[in-house]
Amino acid sequence: MYQDRIRMRALKDRVMSADEAATLVQDGMVVGMSGFTRAGDAKDMPVALAKRAREQPMKITLITGASLGHDSDKALTEAGLLARRLPFQVDATLRSAINRGEVMFVDQHLSETVEFLRAGQFGRLDVAVIEAVAISEDGSIVPSSSVGNSASFAILADKVIVEINLAQPVEFEGMHDIWIPGHRPHREPLPIVNVSDRVGRPTVKIPPEKIAAIIITDTPDSASTVQPADAETQAIANHLIEFFTHEVKRGRMPARLPAIQSGIGTIANAVLKGFLQSPFEHLTMYSEVLQDSTFELMDAGKMDFASGSSITVSRPMQQQVFQNLARYRDKLVLRPQEVSNHPEVIRRLGLIALNTALEADIYGNVNSTHVYGTHMMNGIGGSGDFARNASLAIFATKSVAKGGKVSSIVPMVPHVDHNEHDVDLIVTEQGLADLRTLAPRERVKLIVENCAHPAYRDLLRDYYRDALKYGGQTPHALERAYEMHIRLRDSGSMLPR
Amino acid sequence: MYQDRIRMRALKDRVMSADEAATLVQDGMVVGMSGFTRAGDAKDMPVALAKRAREQPMKITLITGASLGHDSDKALTEAGLLARRLPFQVDATLRSAINRGEVMFVDQHLSETVEFLRAGQFGRLDVAVIEAVAISEDGSIVPSSSVGNSASFAILADKVIVEINLAQPVEFEGMHDIWIPGHRPHREPLPIVNVSDRVGRPTVKIPPEKIAAIIITDTPDSASTVQPADAETQAIANHLIEFFTHEVKRGRMPARLPAIQSGIGTIANAVLKGFLQSPFEHLTMYSEVLQDSTFELMDAGKMDFASGSSITVSRPMQQQVFQNLARYRDKLVLRPQEVSNHPEVIRRLGLIALNTALEADIYGNVNSTHVYGTHMMNGIGGSGDFARNASLAIFATKSVAKGGKVSSIVPMVPHVDHNEHDVDLIVTEQGLADLRTLAPRERVKLIVENCAHPAYRDLLRDYYRDALKYGGQTPHALERAYEMHIRLRDSGSMLPR
Repeated sequence: MYQDRIRMRALKDRVMSADEAATLVQDGMVVGMSGFTRAGDAKDMPVALAKRAREQPMKITLITGASLGHDSDKALTEAGLLARRLPFQVDATLRSAINRGEVMFVDQHLSETVEFLRAGQFGRLDVAVIEAVAISEDGSIVPSSSVGNSASFAILADKVIVEINLAQPVEFEGMHDIWIPGHRPHREPLPIVNVSDRVGRPTVKIPPEKIAAIIITDTPDSASTVQPADAETQAIANHLIEFFTHEVKRGRMPARLPAIQSGIGTIANAVLKGFLQSPFEHLTMYSEVLQDSTFELMDAGKMDFASGSSITVSRPMQQQVFQNLARYRDKLVLRPQEVSNHPEVIRRLGLIALNTALEADIYGNVNSTHVYGTHMMNGIGGSGDFARNASLAIFATKSVAKGGKVSSIVPMVPHVDHNEHDVDLIVTEQGLADLRTLAPRERVKLIVENCAHPAYRDLLRDYYRDALKYGGQTPHALERAYEMHIRLRDSGSMLPR
Repeated sequence: MYQDRIRMRALKDRVMSADEAATLVQDGMVVGMSGFTRAGDAKDMPVALAKRAREQPMKITLITGASLGHDSDKALTEAGLLARRLPFQVDATLRSAINRGEVMFVDQHLSETVEFLRAGQFGRLDVAVIEAVAISEDGSIVPSSSVGNSASFAILADKVIVEINLAQPVEFEGMHDIWIPGHRPHREPLPIVNVSDRVGRPTVKIPPEKIAAIIITDTPDSASTVQPADAETQAIANHLIEFFTHEVKRGRMPARLPAIQSGIGTIANAVLKGFLQSPFEHLTMYSEVLQDSTFELMDAGKMDFASGSSITVSRPMQQQVFQNLARYRDKLVLRPQEVSNHPEVIRRLGLIALNTALEADIYGNVNSTHVYGTHMMNGIGGSGDFARNASLAIFATKSVAKGGKVSSIVPMVPHVDHNEHDVDLIVTEQGLADLRTLAPRERVKLIVENCAHPAYRDLLRDYYRDALKYGGQTPHALERAYEMHIRLRDSGSMLPR
């Protein structure tokens, strides 16, 4: 069954059970695992590692591309295996452990993790665990539904464990473009000038003798958890489509829009779907994760090409796409996250970057990660890579959460992931604030009047009036800056009783 | 006298007084002026414009490279000419007007201003005012001691006013490398792979008919205001040299260090001078401003090459360097700030980026711009361009200011210019905190115990103890987060009475 997936004869004897392979991981090791936005993650090794750690307590540093599926982070956390975890996660159990200070979570820009590894900042990478659809004749690895950091993990690790996943279509072969930056100071330009450019090789080339174990599995990727669009996300999409139309009309954007990046999640997915009913044609994406909307736009003839680092779709879309991969073959490329998120390409292409904010303040600083400024949600992910180098950095959020008890527009965000220098546009279902070329005092009116929920506008206006007494480029009344957050923390609502 | 500086015959009749040229600027216009860190700024036009505005009230948007010398911003502010100013300034009078909300100051990454201009975000650029040492036979402009945004201003503006400055040595000719990114979506890679690469042309090529006026002036650049090293800045330098030595020994940095970027100012200058007594050789710079230390390192045979966007040196160094430019000709290149600060090159070269913090918090977020979080000092300048893409982002500050009344290490910075994702190293005269690969809770100890002034350590420890009660990835006690700042604002000191 799996024999045709291991095409280098000498490697066939490396097949073993996940439990056997797990013994290659020792206490104190640094382990790199494939997986990006729940796609292409190793399926059996996390289970086997959790089992091993329950039997014999041990700790590792676990580095992935981004989030894992299959509750793997939950199992690893419960087994007490994780001393240090990076660069992103979305698991509730792990999140709690992080917020209790039990797991050291290093919240990194997704493009930067392998730069740190390459520079030796984490010491040696002991083991890489990489999901693949096949190992080719020359022993090189063919990734599956994501590339993430897999290629660099395999290149940098002392030992490589490959999980061949029979549930992943072998037609993924040829869809990857593996380009790895050279070592400094002799690094060359990253030669991508169009989203569809292929500049690397289709497989991950490593010395085959590094492959210490091969595991055979047959478990599909976890499905995307994206929710269908609702009235608010539809309104956000409408505001943005209207904005783009207006910019094109004013000659400030070409009618054929720049390539789009879209963060993972329900809002970003809904906005992209909004393009289905728009006049825009020949769309392209240069993004990290490709969601349902990407394929709907392709199927509708609206999108010409999509470059990403992973494919994370709902179960029905997974069945449709993965069973018809050939149909998308000339419209898709999967790249290492270092390339999909590379500042060089993002700036060159002048991307439209669409990411989700947890909250934004009246001056346009954005918190993407920390509830109350203290508790980690998921991590900054790629949003910083994109927002800082895009030609248009959009942050979208519903104006309120928790049935209106939480306002997403606040006087001052208690954690800044994207600051006023990088946030171009804030959009909620209420409306849109185009902050470009404006001074902070000018932004307040736009953000409060256009984006905040009406129930919170008076509170915000009142704060700003008070803040103005202190003057400055960015007026603040420091003693009141977190009034709304403290009220939420202590009473469950940002609204006064 | 100036005849040999205007080599295109047809342009000789454009010579006029600054007062005449100033009439080309009308109320409501957008004006781009040369000048970067007080170097290569237009000398006579600001004076003439201020005079014109005093006689006939008018408002303009003024865009420069960075800061101007000669109190030009003061004169323009006092004349009421400035409606909007970007992207950087260092003038006390302008600063006050900004903080009173009278001048709208757009605090931008220095690499991004021309991207906004090019995209039409400021509307048309009506007039460019560019200092030059000459106009060549083909009508192209030879800049002086800075390039800044001058090239793009001249290219994008409807009309160009050239100030030929006889006090600037004509030997600057050939030292510039003017490379301008193409229009998206067809932009090519920026081909610089070594700091010394020349990839553009030596002059600014524009249609000569756009040159509407030529002014002849004879005023040298303002001298740098950098102070000599003192015990604290020397200690900061020593900590960093020791750190670099250690990193090289551990194999995490090459013995020949990556190219260095250094922000403007006394601390950065002192750190660079620290290399004079170090074992490091063959240093290079890829920076925005080249200060005294650059030339001292070159003269001492320690530095091989420096790439910058301007030369801003003390009066004695100005005399030495400007009178011996030929000596530095093959060791220097001056580039547009869009290139000197380009994320693409910064990431590719893996720069060591050294910038100054106003204050840093116990988790490593840095405030570079806002006193009390409200009042603008100078602007973010290029620090964001560099810190976000460098391989090592260092922020240096003395641990206390105002005779000990202000701590530069605080519980939470009230304005974030560089967040925890981008700050690698914090250094004060007390010591150094290497934050790389650490979770926020791990950073606290390093920052408080290594970097904070002993007089403030108990206050910070006490805050953190309290913050821990609330838990989280980044513990904070929101009601106390700005206790020290409020005390400073209200009583003049962060220390309790």
